Amino acid sequence: MKEVAIIGIGIIKFGELWDKSLRDIAVESALNCLEDSGTDRIDSINIGCMSSGLFIGQEHLASIIADYLGRLNIPSTRVESACASGGLAVRSAFLEVAAGMSDYALAIGVEKMTDVSMGEATYALATAADQDYEAFHGITFPGLYAMLARTHMERWGTTREQLAEVAIKNHRNGSMNQYAQFPFTITLDAVLKSTMIADPLRLLDCSPVTDGAAALLLTTVENAKKLKKHPVVVISGIGSAVDSIALSQRKDLLELKAVKTAAGMALQMSGRTINDIDFAEVHDCFTIAEILVLESMGILEPGKGGPATLEGYTALDGKFPVNPSGGLKSKGHPVGATGVAQIFEIVNQLRGNSGKRQIPGARIGLAQNMGGSGGSCICHIIEAK
Amino acid sequence: MKEVAIIGIGIIKFGELWDKSLRDIAVESALNCLEDSGTDRIDSINIGCMSSGLFIGQEHLASIIADYLGRLNIPSTRVESACASGGLAVRSAFLEVAAGMSDYALAIGVEKMTDVSMGEATYALATAADQDYEAFHGITFPGLYAMLARTHMERWGTTREQLAEVAIKNHRNGSMNQYAQFPFTITLDAVLKSTMIADPLRLLDCSPVTDGAAALLLTTVENAKKLKKHPVVVISGIGSAVDSIALSQRKDLLELKAVKTAAGMALQMSGRTINDIDFAEVHDCFTIAEILVLESMGILEPGKGGPATLEGYTALDGKFPVNPSGGLKSKGHPVGATGVAQIFEIVNQLRGNSGKRQIPGARIGLAQNMGGSGGSCICHIIEAK
Repeated sequence: MKEVAIIGIGIIKFGELWDKSLRDIAVESALNCLEDSGTDRIDSINIGCMSSGLFIGQEHLASIIADYLGRLNIPSTRVESACASGGLAVRSAFLEVAAGMSDYALAIGVEKMTDVSMGEATYALATAADQDYEAFHGITFPGLYAMLARTHMERWGTTREQLAEVAIKNHRNGSMNQYAQFPFTITLDAVLKSTMIADPLRLLDCSPVTDGAAALLLTTVENAKKLKKHPVVVISGIGSAVDSIALSQRKDLLELKAVKTAAGMALQMSGRTINDIDFAEVHDCFTIAEILVLESMGILEPGKGGPATLEGYTALDGKFPVNPSGGLKSKGHPVGATGVAQIFEIVNQLRGNSGKRQIPGARIGLAQNMGGSGGSCICHIIEAK
Repeated sequence: MKEVAIIGIGIIKFGELWDKSLRDIAVESALNCLEDSGTDRIDSINIGCMSSGLFIGQEHLASIIADYLGRLNIPSTRVESACASGGLAVRSAFLEVAAGMSDYALAIGVEKMTDVSMGEATYALATAADQDYEAFHGITFPGLYAMLARTHMERWGTTREQLAEVAIKNHRNGSMNQYAQFPFTITLDAVLKSTMIADPLRLLDCSPVTDGAAALLLTTVENAKKLKKHPVVVISGIGSAVDSIALSQRKDLLELKAVKTAAGMALQMSGRTINDIDFAEVHDCFTIAEILVLESMGILEPGKGGPATLEGYTALDGKFPVNPSGGLKSKGHPVGATGVAQIFEIVNQLRGNSGKRQIPGARIGLAQNMGGSGGSCICHIIEAK
C-alpha cells in the first residue's frame, strides 16, 4: 500500500447559500483546493454527499460535479454514509492513491440543505436512522440524541451546564473561524434559555442545517515531497466501521461501538496510541455527541466527558483541544461536507496556518466523522511529516 | 496493486417483490453469494444503490445492510453513480482488495423500486439526469433515449425492426434465465404494437422497473487459488469514466464518450484488445442503448449496430453474444443491482454453469454498466484463469 499525503485543501464559507447551487459550491471548494495545492492534476474524483436526492432532487453527482469542474473522462465516484459521507470520500480518495489506481485523487464533501423546508430537511436527515423501526414511528435525530443525553445524565450525573459548555467552547473557537456559519460566542444563559427541541436538548445544543462544501487533494508522499509548496502532511491511519443503525438494537446506548472500532483501527494503522494525538475534530452534531465520542474513543473515561469539558480539558488552551474549527455546532453541518471540512482544519493546524485558533506545536490530529446515531464512523489520523 | 479474483456470486429472482424489503433482498443476495463462495469471511462491504432515499426513504445503507447481514465493526461503504452504481460497488470492492485494505471484500448491488407509484419512480430515475437543465423542464429518460434513437435513425438509417430485434434477442436469452423478471419470448409484432412511450420508443423497447439484488465476493488471486471450490476467475481490467450529464452539452449525441473511455481503460489495464473479448453484458436500458454502447466500445462500427443485431451478430449463437442473461430488458433493471448482476452472469458463463444459455468456450467477458444517458460508465473485464 502506497503512503498517502494531503497536498491541497479548499473550503467555502458555510451558511444559507441561496444564491449558489450544489454544483456551484462543490466546484468552488475544489478550485480553492487546486489553488492551494499548486497543481491542477486530478486522476479521479471522490464525492461525499448524504442525500442530494432528497435535498435537491439530483443524484448522479459523480457526473454532474466532474462536468461542472471541467474534468471529464476520468473516474468519479460518489459515496454515502449519512453524515459520515465526507470522511468516506476521503477514504475513497485514499484507496485510489494507496492502490495505485490514481496518482492524484480529489475528495469533495458537499451538501445543499437549505433549498427545502425545515420539515423536508428533518425528513431527509431522518433517512440516516432506521426508517422501519425509528423514523416511521415519529422519532428524528434530536429525539434519538435526547435519549442518549438522558441516559448519560442518569448514569453519570452529567449536568445541563456540562452539556452547554460543549456548545459554548465550540462557538468560542468558531468565532475565530472565517468559514463558520455562526462565528459568534454564546453564553451559558443563552443556551439554557434557547428553545427546547427534545428534552434535555435545546436549540443551542444542536448543530444547524447548512449549505457547504470542502475539498482535499491527495497524492503519494513521494509526489508531495516534490511539490514543496507546503510542509508534507500524511494520512497515517484510517478506520471505518459500522454499528447497528437503530438504537433499540444496541446493548449499551452509551457505547458507540463504530466510533470505538474506527478509532482503534486508525490508531493501529498509524502505529500510534490515543496518547500520541495532539488534538481532534469530532462529530458534535449535538452537545451530547461530543461527550459520547470522546468517551468512546478513550480520550476520556466513561462518565468523565461532562466534567472534563466544564474544566476546560477540551478547550483550545486545554490539555486536549477538541473542535478548534468550531465544530459542527458553530462552523455548521452540511452533512456530506463535514468529514472533509474536519480534515481541512487539521491540515491547516498542522501547517501552522490557523491564526488565533492555532494550537501550538500541533503535529498529529484525529478526525472523527459519524453517521446517524453512530451507525457508521470514519476516523483519520493526520500527521505532519 | 494486488491481483483480484471473484470467488462468490449470488443473486435473487428479480421482480415486483412486494413481500420483501430492501434490507431483505440485499441480505438474501449476500447470503447466496457466501454460500456459493465456500467461505464466510468478509472484511468490508461495498454497496451500490442509486436512490434508496427517494425509493424507500432510507439512506445510510452501509450501516443498515451490514446490520441485517450480521456483520458489524467492519468498513462498509455505499457508492452511487445512478444506474452504474452496481459496477461502481464492484470497483470499490476491487480497490479494497487491490490496495490491501481488505482481504475479502463483498460487493452488493440493490434497488427496491416498486414500493412507490410509477410517477414517483419516474421522478426518482430522472434525478440521474441534469435536474436544472433537463428533468425540471419535463424530460425524463424515455424522452432522452428517444432523441438518441431519432438521431441514430436519421444519421444511419437504423430501422424500427432493428431496434425491436434488440428486445426480441434479449427476451429470447432471458426466457432461459430463472432469475429474470420477464422470462418469456416476445415477437416483432408485439414490440411494434406495444404502447408508445416516447416516439420511436415503445413499451417493449424499455427496461422495466424492478426490485432486485446481486452480490459478489472478491479476494486476492492467491486466496482464490487456495479455495479450489470454483475455477479461478479474475477481474483483469476496470475502467471508470464520466461525461457531461446533460445531452445538450455533448458535441455528438451518438458518441458515448464515458463508455468509450471506460472500455478503453479496462482493456488497457487487462492488456487485451476488444477482439480478445468473447461476449459482453451491456446496459440495454432501452433498445437504442445497446446499439449505441456496442458502437461506442468499438465492437461494431458506428451505424452498424442495427443491421448487425438484425443479422444475429449479437445473438447467443452469433459471432459476439451480447446480454446472454437477457439484459436489463428481460432480466429486469433494479438500477443499483444491474452492474453486479451483469458480472454474476459473466462469472457463471466463465464457470460453464449457464445451462441452455451457455456460450461454448467463453473465457473472457466484458461488463458495461452506465449511468443516466451515458454521464458515467464502469467497465470490467472478467477472465477465467
